[in-house]
Amino acid sequence: MKKHQENLDKWYKDNGWEYWSPHEMLASLVEEVGELSRLVNHIYGPKKKKDTEAKQEMEGEIGDILYSVMCFANHEGIDLDKAIERSMGKVEKRDKDRF
Amino acid sequence: MKKHQENLDKWYKDNGWEYWSPHEMLASLVEEVGELSRLVNHIYGPKKKKDTEAKQEMEGEIGDILYSVMCFANHEGIDLDKAIERSMGKVEKRDKDRF
Amino acid sequence: MKKHQENLDKWYKDNGWEYWSPHEMLASLVEEVGELSRLVNHIYGPKKKKDTEAKQEMEGEIGDILYSVMCFANHEGIDLDKAIERSMGKVEKRDKDRF
Amino acid sequence: MKKHQENLDKWYKDNGWEYWSPHEMLASLVEEVGELSRLVNHIYGPKKKKDTEAKQEMEGEIGDILYSVMCFANHEGIDLDKAIERSMGKVEKRDKDRF
Repeated sequence: MKKHQENLDKWYKDNGWEYWSPHEMLASLVEEVGELSRLVNHIYGPKKKKDTEAKQEMEGEIGDILYSVMCFANHEGIDLDKAIERSMGKVEKRDKDRF
Repeated sequence: MKKHQENLDKWYKDNGWEYWSPHEMLASLVEEVGELSRLVNHIYGPKKKKDTEAKQEMEGEIGDILYSVMCFANHEGIDLDKAIERSMGKVEKRDKDRF
Repeated sequence: MKKHQENLDKWYKDNGWEYWSPHEMLASLVEEVGELSRLVNHIYGPKKKKDTEAKQEMEGEIGDILYSVMCFANHEGIDLDKAIERSMGKVEKRDKDRF
Repeated sequence: MKKHQENLDKWYKDNGWEYWSPHEMLASLVEEVGELSRLVNHIYGPKKKKDTEAKQEMEGEIGDILYSVMCFANHEGIDLDKAIERSMGKVEKRDKDRF
């Protein structure tokens, strides 16, 4: 993720942009998660129509969520690779304690 | 709310519809919350353009959220008036304990 | 809903409180929807354990969501009964057009 | 991200786990976004108390969101690096068209 995060930062700097406020970025993330929800209901929902086009859309929605998360993380100075490893370690630990 | 909930139930029955599964209704609620988020960023967000049309859209988005919540509540047999009173009581209590 | 909305407004005024900003209220709503999600996965999710306690918790989570929506609506001057009727009318219309 | 995604897949296979259903994973993602919302309100919200501990918690919440997204993506066969690049390209393009 480091490379993606650096690209994003460089790109914002090159364009003279600033990240939005945390609340604004959060709202943007929620909007993207809402679009993913629509798609999940569309593909796996009540009517269960397997739509290839919708399936491809999913990559787009997931990418938009990650873009929102990356903006947020860069604004907060969070290293996403470290964050992922920490969360995976937590699940792993919780799982070990269970057995 | 009781009247709204009964209307909804009657309407579903009259049409021979069934409520979706809880996960499907939840996804639908999240989609609506995502649309509200988009609107909040649009009206109060980075550009802060006061758009009267967008302002009116808000009533629509809020109504869609309530519609999702009502479907969910009817499926689960939850009395929304009771639920509201309970939540307001909780905040009130928390507040009293503070002073 | 009108009565609930008026109660809420009166209560805020009596306590000298002000509603949060739209972005802050939205974040609060998303937090409550997140708690409902946890509960839906708990009750209907992978392990499908029917937990009566969890089932009762649901009324609480739904109430918290409605409380967030009511704060938001009061801040924006939205009449929730009108919003519900409009959303139900929209679904009804969409449905009629389908057949 | 490729390495993280492969680690996750290997780890699930080694443990004989299966990914949850898309709706269940979505609910889980929404739960994590809800926790991030709570934190954003806590740090940047009405009271604006800068809590160092809360600030560190944010890395944890962001990591949990990415974990949810990665499970979802692996289940759907989505390459996250590709998804990120596509989303960044889209914003870039939208931006170029604007000027």
